[in-house]
Amino acid sequence: MTGRIIIEDLRPRTPTGRYPAKAAVGEGVPLSATIFKEGHDVLAAQVTLVPTGPQGPNGVKRRVELGQSQAAPLTLVNPGLDRWEVVVTPEVLGLHHFVVEAWTDRQGTWAKKTKAKVDADQDISVEIAEGIALFESRDSDDPALRAALAGLKEGLVALALVTPLPGPQGAPDLTASEPNTLWVDRARALFSAWYELFPRSYGGFKGAEERIPAVAGMGFDVLYLPPVHPIGVTERKGPDNTLGAGVDDPGSPWAIGNSDGGHTAIDPGLGTFDDFSHLLATAAEYGLEVALDYALQCSPDHPWVHEHPEWFHHRPDGSIAYAENPPKKYQDIYPINFWPGDDADRIALWEACKDILDFWLGKGVAIFRVDNPHTKPVAFWEWLIGSVRAEHPEVIFLAEAFTRPPVMAKLAEVGFSQSYTYFTWRTEQEGPDGLRAYLEELTGDLADFMRPNFWPNTPDILSGPLRNGPPAAFAGRLVLAATLSPSWGMYSGFELCENEPASPANEEYRHSEKYEIRTRNFDQPGSLAPLAASINAIRRKHPALQRLRLTEFHKTDNPLVVAYSKISDDGGDVMLMVVNLDPYLPQWSILDLDLAVLGLPASEPYSAVDELSGETFTWVGNHPFVRLEPWVRVAHVLHLPDARPPLPGTAPAAEAP
Amino acid sequence: MTGRIIIEDLRPRTPTGRYPAKAAVGEGVPLSATIFKEGHDVLAAQVTLVPTGPQGPNGVKRRVELGQSQAAPLTLVNPGLDRWEVVVTPEVLGLHHFVVEAWTDRQGTWAKKTKAKVDADQDISVEIAEGIALFESRDSDDPALRAALAGLKEGLVALALVTPLPGPQGAPDLTASEPNTLWVDRARALFSAWYELFPRSYGGFKGAEERIPAVAGMGFDVLYLPPVHPIGVTERKGPDNTLGAGVDDPGSPWAIGNSDGGHTAIDPGLGTFDDFSHLLATAAEYGLEVALDYALQCSPDHPWVHEHPEWFHHRPDGSIAYAENPPKKYQDIYPINFWPGDDADRIALWEACKDILDFWLGKGVAIFRVDNPHTKPVAFWEWLIGSVRAEHPEVIFLAEAFTRPPVMAKLAEVGFSQSYTYFTWRTEQEGPDGLRAYLEELTGDLADFMRPNFWPNTPDILSGPLRNGPPAAFAGRLVLAATLSPSWGMYSGFELCENEPASPANEEYRHSEKYEIRTRNFDQPGSLAPLAASINAIRRKHPALQRLRLTEFHKTDNPLVVAYSKISDDGGDVMLMVVNLDPYLPQWSILDLDLAVLGLPASEPYSAVDELSGETFTWVGNHPFVRLEPWVRVAHVLHLPDARPPLPGTAPAAEAP
Repeated sequence: MTGRIIIEDLRPRTPTGRYPAKAAVGEGVPLSATIFKEGHDVLAAQVTLVPTGPQGPNGVKRRVELGQSQAAPLTLVNPGLDRWEVVVTPEVLGLHHFVVEAWTDRQGTWAKKTKAKVDADQDISVEIAEGIALFESRDSDDPALRAALAGLKEGLVALALVTPLPGPQGAPDLTASEPNTLWVDRARALFSAWYELFPRSYGGFKGAEERIPAVAGMGFDVLYLPPVHPIGVTERKGPDNTLGAGVDDPGSPWAIGNSDGGHTAIDPGLGTFDDFSHLLATAAEYGLEVALDYALQCSPDHPWVHEHPEWFHHRPDGSIAYAENPPKKYQDIYPINFWPGDDADRIALWEACKDILDFWLGKGVAIFRVDNPHTKPVAFWEWLIGSVRAEHPEVIFLAEAFTRPPVMAKLAEVGFSQSYTYFTWRTEQEGPDGLRAYLEELTGDLADFMRPNFWPNTPDILSGPLRNGPPAAFAGRLVLAATLSPSWGMYSGFELCENEPASPANEEYRHSEKYEIRTRNFDQPGSLAPLAASINAIRRKHPALQRLRLTEFHKTDNPLVVAYSKISDDGGDVMLMVVNLDPYLPQWSILDLDLAVLGLPASEPYSAVDELSGETFTWVGNHPFVRLEPWVRVAHVLHLPDARPPLPGTAPAAEAP
Repeated sequence: MTGRIIIEDLRPRTPTGRYPAKAAVGEGVPLSATIFKEGHDVLAAQVTLVPTGPQGPNGVKRRVELGQSQAAPLTLVNPGLDRWEVVVTPEVLGLHHFVVEAWTDRQGTWAKKTKAKVDADQDISVEIAEGIALFESRDSDDPALRAALAGLKEGLVALALVTPLPGPQGAPDLTASEPNTLWVDRARALFSAWYELFPRSYGGFKGAEERIPAVAGMGFDVLYLPPVHPIGVTERKGPDNTLGAGVDDPGSPWAIGNSDGGHTAIDPGLGTFDDFSHLLATAAEYGLEVALDYALQCSPDHPWVHEHPEWFHHRPDGSIAYAENPPKKYQDIYPINFWPGDDADRIALWEACKDILDFWLGKGVAIFRVDNPHTKPVAFWEWLIGSVRAEHPEVIFLAEAFTRPPVMAKLAEVGFSQSYTYFTWRTEQEGPDGLRAYLEELTGDLADFMRPNFWPNTPDILSGPLRNGPPAAFAGRLVLAATLSPSWGMYSGFELCENEPASPANEEYRHSEKYEIRTRNFDQPGSLAPLAASINAIRRKHPALQRLRLTEFHKTDNPLVVAYSKISDDGGDVMLMVVNLDPYLPQWSILDLDLAVLGLPASEPYSAVDELSGETFTWVGNHPFVRLEPWVRVAHVLHLPDARPPLPGTAPAAEAP
């Protein structure tokens, strides 16, 4: 049965409500609820956020900290929709729950009713008696209160000043919501800049280590390595995904395992565990954290194939089925059967998968990019991530699930910290597949539990304007990725504007680094490394760019010019990006800025400081003119120091009829 | 933990999922769910709808009928969003639950994979062996099957023909959803036409009875009477809501109770219980069902005031507080305190409120229009409606909750069958307060549990174009109400275009019938009774107008011309309405019909039969021209006999990337 007061639709939450929503340490999280009761009484409400520690593999919650569990008062931010909200900043890692409580504010109700009567010149003698009864039990000897009551018409405001809002103590209709849960990650789960490279193209770990100063110099803070394990020889793929690899062909790193070992071994060609540790240490010196690939599949030569044939699919002829999605064939990879008929086999397999993560956690790795999680059972991920986080709440999982929206969202719901997205294919401004619609989707309900990581390219995907595209195409996509999403990533070669597709119909790269060594000269004129460095530096300087929720698109009169703003948690930092989506021609637009959202004056001048160029523009009104020549610059990344945006909680919406 | 297969977001459902969604006997209800598993297997799914009888006051479910519990196969209607659906038509009144089950279709998976290989000219010898293993355990001696397997490339289609889709029996990954609940009302809860009149203006029940043939002649099927109880004398309101009523002033029927009795008594001026029964019987003869007002408030002279002072709010001076919403005062009404301090008092009060309904149910009344339910606790309604329906699942409750959207929706969620809406104030086509946006809201998620009842006027509300408006304003609002919503209602006098507001600022009528007797001459030239009769006859003839969900607005090039279509459950009936929103001037528009939604040919002629005028238009393409002169006609109500709309379940949407 419903409570005395209705308290519903607590946010943040996941679609089913059965998993924790997500936040990060230091992130301003809007906790909100719909709260009402019958009639016209004034309500009061508060929310209590309690850290309960990580959740164990069997759902056991351990309470690790109670000092954080202070109640925060909620504000009625939308009276017409009975929506209450407060922004709370978690400081403790791990699982939290939050409960909203509401009660009738008898003093506020009395004041509202009495004021309405005073305003209408109606008799308030009974209200005075009610007011005395209401207050005297609390503070009847307070001379200020008595004076205020005596001269009530003039004293109503004074009364509100001298009597603090009563808390829920003793409220006869104090009602508590059902609790919601919130998982608090470390800050990097929300705000991160990834750089991907194949160590073997640099001669292994030692060579890759030499790239670290340059990668750190571009401002990245996560260095992601494709699988570093021994690579199968059976059906090894040659250049451009061909069969019949030559003896010198290195094969795909995702064909994991050979006689040298499987997921807990290192390809001897890359170096030793000592080399790996040295790489991690050097990376840490430069502020870079190394992320490993977690690809749960085996080459036909992986030790598991012989030791645990029960973990694989067998065909009628007794052979193990290689991976295929007809007509595509992956002869060098055996998929794992995550749900063998015998449940003991399943448990042993799942534990073995967890052992891999525990092994690399022991080596100092706490970020994993998970290969194709949508081809493994959702229940497996729920168990695995929950089990790992029970002991290691700091671990970050990035889901590479380029699949249908419900599947992508579900993987986020059951625990993945970040997700690759459809950003790569969102290249227009408008329409259902445009950037504006996609950001609205990502910054809406999804933002409660799914964190996008925008990659303009990956070793698998060279798409849209990048295909045979000019440098301005790369620069534009870089700026979009890094300023639309708090987390973004780049696969090496992007900064050199590598643009050759495998074929007109194929989204892969020609001479894909997945199948061959690629050496590069990074000191080329025209490299986008300086742009990446600038953008990443601007991201660090501006908290607005470190958050997802307060993103707003502004209208332009040219579909090829996109304008969007970001606002920091506290409203103290406001950025406006204007990007030319056309990498070939100059485009211009009269913008139609939503000054109310930005908190800018309608008719007084304000500054727009381009953090890329250093220029300062002085604009008046909501219609600045912008022209972007792609060979000069593809974007403005503007700081608006005069903006004072109204934060949620301060601007009530209009009442419904 | 999630199941082997993910089965989520079952629809219909209420926002919290803790109350039954709504359907009506004979209504085609789309039951749907998001269903997927990892990888590329083909799935199959079914839903089972089980009547479980009404839910008792303590949540006890009584299973009354199992014959209905047949499983219906679900169809993948939106592959890109993994959405499955089937339309099911309930036949039994009361509470149902429904469960979705899904499993891997091994045969379908095999056929899809094998066909892809055949299409790519790949070797399928292993697939043939797999196919034999898959089929031979089921039907190995079937010569057709053996022949099909032998010549597989040619026989693949034949194979699909000879082997029916296997059911869930033996599927190792058969997974069941959590159950949703569905409350099935009688048909009139969804499709109804209400007429409201004050019997006292006709001399009481006998005089009102004489109006029944005319009301039935206009095609209405519910006759709603404001409160019929004795009216208080203390602080009785005079004409136009004034204080100091004269001895002959009848007072507001909502000031319920005097020395003649309270909510279970009849105002002697209206007649006797026998007269009331006679009225009901005559109404029934004419296909009209009488609805009573359920207004839980008391005049100062109500017996409860003396017998149960504990059910009222007392002020410091000992008086009982009359109703007020400052600066408004309702001196003739005492609101009830639904949550007295002593819980025994609360229980006695709630039971007494239920006794009122049981009393009138005993008199043959099964529809109640509930006055201001939003000023009483939600928990009270949840208990009351659940308790009444445990014994009387046929009872219909219409909520008069002109309040904020979350409150209106919550009352629907906890049990109200129908709701008054904001229709009265939705007079424009576009914008957030326009008809299009409002219908999108009502036909979206809300349609799962909230049924609108559109009233162009009520005794409390004369608004928008009706205020001092011409007959065309009334005709237009009538057509809109009756063709946008399956349930609509009219307060008597509307057909006479009574248009005089209480004041320029006041939404009430001048000489409001709430405070005085109003006699009318219904046989006036220009009466809209014939229009009401036509529209209600068209509603009965066309199933499309009896449903809410499949409503679609079509673009027009004139904001004053609105066009919308309705489609019946089975797609066999399609109606297109075109209405002039301007009651003063002719308006014309080139329509922009969505032919795909309507299932009309793009370039061949099709008919549009105006059921109001009898004309048949022959149109070609999506741009018919329409001109509406308000003094001739305000609307086309068109039957589209050539329309063959694609129903949900037959037109898969595009896949996501």
